[in-house]
Parts: sequence; structure tokens; C-alpha cells
Amino acid sequence: MSPADATTSHGPSRRGFLTGSAAAVGVATGAAGGYAAARAVQVDEPGDTTGANGGRAAAFAGAHQAGITSSPGAHGTFLAFDLVDGSTRDDLRRLMRLWSDDARRLMAGQGALADTEPELAAAPAGLTVTFGWGRAATVLAGGEDAAPAWLKPLPAFSIDALEDRWSDGDLLVMIHADDPVTVSHAARMITKDATSLAVHRWHQTGFRQAYGSHASGTTMRNLFGQVDGTTNPPVAAEEFARRVWISDGWLTGGTSFVLRRIRMDLAVWDQVDRIGRENAVGRTLDTGAPLTGTVEHDEPDLDAVDARGFPIISDVAHLRRARPGDPAQRIVRMGFNYDEPARGGAEAEAGLLFGSVQADVDAQFVPIQERLAQADLLNVWTTPVGSAVFAILPGCSQDGYLGDGLLEG
Amino acid sequence: MSPADATTSHGPSRRGFLTGSAAAVGVATGAAGGYAAARAVQVDEPGDTTGANGGRAAAFAGAHQAGITSSPGAHGTFLAFDLVDGSTRDDLRRLMRLWSDDARRLMAGQGALADTEPELAAAPAGLTVTFGWGRAATVLAGGEDAAPAWLKPLPAFSIDALEDRWSDGDLLVMIHADDPVTVSHAARMITKDATSLAVHRWHQTGFRQAYGSHASGTTMRNLFGQVDGTTNPPVAAEEFARRVWISDGWLTGGTSFVLRRIRMDLAVWDQVDRIGRENAVGRTLDTGAPLTGTVEHDEPDLDAVDARGFPIISDVAHLRRARPGDPAQRIVRMGFNYDEPARGGAEAEAGLLFGSVQADVDAQFVPIQERLAQADLLNVWTTPVGSAVFAILPGCSQDGYLGDGLLEG
Ligand code: HEM
Ligand code: HEM
Repeated sequence: MSPADATTSHGPSRRGFLTGSAAAVGVATGAAGGYAAARAVQVDEPGDTTGANGGRAAAFAGAHQAGITSSPGAHGTFLAFDLVDGSTRDDLRRLMRLWSDDARRLMAGQGALADTEPELAAAPAGLTVTFGWGRAATVLAGGEDAAPAWLKPLPAFSIDALEDRWSDGDLLVMIHADDPVTVSHAARMITKDATSLAVHRWHQTGFRQAYGSHASGTTMRNLFGQVDGTTNPPVAAEEFARRVWISDGWLTGGTSFVLRRIRMDLAVWDQVDRIGRENAVGRTLDTGAPLTGTVEHDEPDLDAVDARGFPIISDVAHLRRARPGDPAQRIVRMGFNYDEPARGGAEAEAGLLFGSVQADVDAQFVPIQERLAQADLLNVWTTPVGSAVFAILPGCSQDGYLGDGLLEG
Repeated sequence: MSPADATTSHGPSRRGFLTGSAAAVGVATGAAGGYAAARAVQVDEPGDTTGANGGRAAAFAGAHQAGITSSPGAHGTFLAFDLVDGSTRDDLRRLMRLWSDDARRLMAGQGALADTEPELAAAPAGLTVTFGWGRAATVLAGGEDAAPAWLKPLPAFSIDALEDRWSDGDLLVMIHADDPVTVSHAARMITKDATSLAVHRWHQTGFRQAYGSHASGTTMRNLFGQVDGTTNPPVAAEEFARRVWISDGWLTGGTSFVLRRIRMDLAVWDQVDRIGRENAVGRTLDTGAPLTGTVEHDEPDLDAVDARGFPIISDVAHLRRARPGDPAQRIVRMGFNYDEPARGGAEAEAGLLFGSVQADVDAQFVPIQERLAQADLLNVWTTPVGSAVFAILPGCSQDGYLGDGLLEG
């Protein structure tokens, strides 16, 4: 589609878009005309596009939920809810039906049922809405046997300073998209539709580099300025599937999600020079290359020593401590920065919403976190203040709903 | 530049970028290679670009500051500071020199002096950093005569429920860009460089539609779902200059900025049907067209009546009440949505950071706000909780600093 097409008035094509044609689109440019509006003349944006990224719609149906294999997008919101006292299995089924319908529509760029602001849904911008259950919801749906052993709060780590207000929860809804308006709207619909069935527990929001600001595939940077996410197994790799997807029981096609809210002390970090900072991780700040290499994806050489015989990558560097000796322990990390100004009684706080995806929390995440708690230079400047564990439900069919594998049994 | 070019490793070209070549770029694609990184394979983004928008660098020098005529970008942060007790004119000069240097470098995609995370500055993504003074700073710089009559808190309006923590301030720094990481980093540098010269007063952050999610020039939507910003005079129009730029005295080339933090009661708004919502403004929700027209930029017909003789655009519709009878009263609006989860003692809150730019606050903004305070259907769901007025300094030369017109006198 040419830029000229994108500037046509949007009456009829928008209606087509809202009644469902976008669901089939999937890829960028085809949908852009659907919400292209009359061009306001006030704008001065030489680098702008014709809205191609706004029309990007993730598929709802499939063996896996959306939001795990896709790039997380620039904005992420995590909502946790608790079941209301006395909730029944029927209540949970009703909630999951409602939420699944919301996700299906919103991801396709349509308003949810009874959406009072459907226009805010028109640009999905890669929106994914992903659902998880804590132990209580899982047991309600399928009894004690349905809940994996790892589905519980993490063991306490020596570095933890956890606050209840950022921890645990019966239900998780994870919302990613490249547009903050889309994310805000989706979070609001999901929260409205929980009413009477689940109560708000916490709501955390973070950001990564924006769509269009870096070359496609550029690894994100956290607020310490570090390239963060380099060693994640590529989605296309066979290893990714092995590390992530659960392959037996009702959770087949699902996975687990750990969210750690980790405060970063930027003021103290500021006092560390560049060499100290690079040693803390074992990678350079400019490219993210290991200190033993030259480009980001070079394999670190953990045995390399300097002229005096000292290891180039420190014994307590984050890279070395975090790296599983056993590949079966590998996790997939998904981080969002947060930077929250002071408000009301709350102090300003910055850090990382550290998300970790793995088939088995106890076998993969816990040993890494335990090693890091024992020794990791980054601990000087980082403090976990929130922690939660969820089972990410398997995908469902286009007419099904998330959790139906267990709730229809 | 082709996508293939953008994926080359960034060692040498990045160095070129950081040492200043980007300052001359101004427009998108030329700079993209500067921070294009090795392509990580994990990504699944069919609609992604090669980072063209990240390289967009606004010019620092000129008759006007950046950030007024440019499209505001997807993310906006507003920082207010107070001068420390006993500040001298020399202190203010030192601060403005430091901040101007920060702005010049950051807008060009370089780290600030002594920037501890210069990598977070590498994608300016249209970054603009704009400075304003409240009355105290202006008087310190140039004496009572230098301060325009309008440079003071707004008169009290009947609808106000102002909170001190979102109001007033001696100094304003307004930061806009399409990338939230860029904005967060710039805000941090500005705050760090204020140390000992100015103390943090408030920090408010908002968002608009993301780059790439809508056709270029699409008017933003607020969290009521309304198209918001339609009637702004186009930047290119002669009228824009007349309404915005101050044309005499030391503030020539400057303007004024009013920031109103307006809470929006989404829960009550939800109970209003579509007809009621559209009547509240006098425009439709789908396209933003006036109720008397068919497309967004149709001129509203304020005299049109329905079959029963009632005005089609209500006597108390926002559009009618806000619209100045006298064109000399027109303002330029610049809104950012905010949607803040509960945190600490602070409740969740959503609304609009309503920015208004005009040559004369008393002659333009105040009469409109007074009319709206007297009667406006939107008042049912909106409450101003913060209010601040600043003089936006004129631009300066590439070697100068903001405020030098007065501080060098
Ligand atoms: C604020 C806290 C943290 C920061 C700033 C941080 C930062 C980083 C950085 C910069 C890297 C190197 C680049 C990369 O491979 O992505 C890295 C690697 C890694 N981090 Fe973290 N991290 C944090 C917390 C954690 C936590 C809590 C865990 C898990 C419990 C973890 C596990 C890992 C793993 C597994 C690697 C890859 C190691 C390898 O095999 O090379 N990190 N982290
Ligand atoms: C949360 C509060 C507000 C909301 C949701 C809101 C929303 C809107 C909407 C939807 C429009 C119509 C579309 C457009 O022309 O942009 C509009 C127009 C306008 N608003 Fe507001 N507005 C708010 C507050 C204010 C305030 C505080 C002022 C100034 C004191 C103001 C001044 C105007 C003006 C001058 C127009 C254009 C009227 C015309 O000439 O057509 N608004 N606003």
C-alpha cells in the first residue's frame, strides 16, 4: 500500500475492519488502510510510516497461547487477580470464557463485547493477551492433581526483600503490544470483565525500545544501559521448544512464568566506572559482547585468563553465575524496564520486570536464581521486591477458551 | 538504506554516530545504520522496520526551542523543579548551560557529558527537550520587569480540585520522543544534572499512539476513546505562529505552556451510552467528525438544529463551550494520556496531561478555561487535579544556551 492510499478517509474501510476482516490479516501492511484517518496537517514527522505496525494481529488460536514466542513489543502490562472467596469451578469457567473472548477480539483489532471504547482497540500493534493460573485457580479447575509441584511461591532467597503488594496471585493476565494506548485499553477491558469473579491484586507496567527505533531484532537494553536478552534461545530453535513447552498432562502446550520485580539502584550504579560495570556482567556495555569476544553473539570463553592469570570473566560475574552448566536448566528471559515517578506515598522506583519462561520452574529457574542469590556482582545494585509464579495455559481452538482442557473435563 | 545494511555490526559506524555525525542528520533513514545491531534471531516481527524512526534527530538551535512545532511523539515526560533557597542568577545560568548542553547532545543521539549510559541515548527517536521558567526563575534572571503578567498560577476555577504535588514549579523540562527508553534516560540525565541547583518538584509521564501504529498524521485518541486534537491550527499555517510565538521583549520566539493534570473518571464514563458521549463533545466517536458533519475535519455547524428545533451540537457540548468566538483566543493543545496503576498509598488514576501552548495565557487560555468551568458536559467526568504555568524560553544558537538572552544581559 502506498502512503497516498493510507491517507484516504476511513469511514467504510474501518467498518470492514471492525467487523472482523482484520482477524485474517496477521501481517502489517494489509490492514493499515482500516484505521488510516484523514491526515491532520499539524504533523512534522519525516520518519513516520503509514501505520503498518498498528495492523499487526497475532493469532489467538493454536497449540500455544500468543505472547510467548512473539517478540514482547514495546509495552508490557502484568495484571494479577485473586479469585473471590467462595468461587466455584463454574465461576472460573465463566471468567475464562469471558477473558478468552476479550483476548480473541482485542488481538484481532476489534473491540471486546460491550467494549465502550472499541476505537482504542483498532490498532492491535501486535497485541498479545496471555493467561496464567496460580495454584488456587488450578486446583479449583482440576483438583490437587492438576497442579504441578512447581506451582507455588518460589523458595525464599537470601537477596529477597519481597513486598506482598507485588507478589503472588491466583490469575495472571500478561498484555504486550507496541502501542501503549492499545495496552492500556486491553488492561482496562480485562479488569472490567473480571468484576464480581476476581479481584485486582497487582498491576505492573514496563517498557522496552519502541517499534521503529532500532533495527529489527536488536536486543533490548535495561536501565543500567546493558544489552539484556542476548543468550535467550532463538524461538525458531528446537531448543526453545524443549526448554519452554510442557509436554505432558493437561498443561501440554503450556509453560510456566515467573515474574520477579527487581528494583535497580541507579544512584549507586552511577558511582561505578565502566570497567566495574562491565565486569559485573562479563560483557561490554557498547555492544554486549562477552569480555572475551568482539560482537554480541560471540560465545563467552569462561576459561580465558588475563596476563596475570586472573579470569577475564570474573568468578562472580552475572554471566558466569547465571549460565547453567546443564543446558536442561536454560530459561527464556523476557524483561521490561520500569521507571515510576514518585506519587502519593510511593517513592520513585526504577528496575526490571524480569519475566522468565520455562517448562519447569523448579528444574530450570530455581537453580539459577539460587546460584545468583549466593553470589552475583549485580546483587550490589539489584533487589527483588516482587515474585510470582504462574502456569501459562495451553492454547485453545478458535471457538474454545483458555483452560477448557481442564474446565470441560 | 536497505534492511540488509541495517543489520551490519555496529562497531565503527556507531563510533562515528556518537562523535557527532548524527547531529547533522535530522531525518530518519540516514542515521539508522549508526545503532543497528547484530540481528538476534529470536524475533518474530513481520511489521518491523530497520530502525528508521530511531535516528530522527530534532534540531537544537533556532529561533524557537524544539518540541513545540514537532508532533509530540508517543511518550511525554514533564519534570518540574524548584530553585534551591538562596539561588543566585549565576546558579541559574550554570544550570541552564548544563541543561542546554544535555539537550543539544541528547537530541542528537549522543550521551550527555558524563553520561553513564550513553547507549540509552543512541536512538533519539525524535527526542525534544524543552525548557520553561516559572515566575521565580524569570525574576531571578531578569528582575520583575522580565516576567509577563500571565506568568503566575491560573485563577481558581470552580471545577478545580488541585493538589499541590502536581502544581506549579520554578522550572519545567518537557521531554518528548517516540521511544520510552530514550525519554526515561533523558529525564534521568536532566534530573541528575539539576542536583545542587534545583530540587525535584513533580514528574508526570504520559503516552499517545505509538509511532507506526497509525497512519502518519492521525489525530490521537484520549482514554475516553475520543479523537482529541482535531481543531489545533496546523503548524504550517500562518495562524499557528500568530497564536503561539511571543513577538516582543526578551521572550520573542518563546511562548507559554499550561499543564493541567485532568483526572478522567472512566468508571462513570462507562455508564454513559454512545449518544450521550457524542453529545458531551459534539463529535462522533468513530471518526471525530462534528455531529453536523461526516469527516473529522468538517467545520462544525453550531447553528444546525434537529427536526424539533433543538441544536444538534448541544449548548453545553465541550466543542461549543471550548471554541473561542474570537480567533485571537485560540490555543494549541498537546495532550498525553496517563494511566497509573495503584502503588503504595496512591490509588490507580487515569486521565489527560493537558498541555496548552499560547503566546498569552491570560488572553487565550484563561477565557476558554473559564467558559468550560461555567458549563461543559465533560465536567461530569473530568477533574483538574494539577495546574502549572511556564514561560517557554526562546531558542538559542548552537553555541548558546537556553535563557542566554536574559542571563547574559
Ligand atoms: C535486575 C536484575 C538483572 C539484570 C540487570 C540482569 C542483566 C543481565 C545481563 C546484562 C545479561 C547478559 C546479556 C544476556 O545474555 O542477556 C544477563 C544474562 C543472564 N541473566 Fe540476568 N539480569 C538480572 C536478573 C536475572 C535473574 C533474576 C535471573 C534468573 C534467576 C537472570 C538470569 C540470567 C541468565 C540465565 C543469563 C544468561 C547467562 C548466559 O548463559 O550467558 N538474570 N542478565
Ligand atoms: C480531560 C479533559 C478534556 C478532554 C477529554 C477534552 C476532549 C476534547 C475533545 C474530544 C475535543 C474535540 C476534538 C478536537 O477538536 O480536538 C476537544 C476540543 C477542544 N478542547 Fe478539550 N478536552 C479536555 C479539556 C480541555 C481543556 C482544559 C481545555 C482548555 C481550557 C480544552 C480546550 C479545547 C478546545 C479549545 C477545543 C477545540 C474546540 C473547537 O474550536 O472546536 N479542552 N477537547
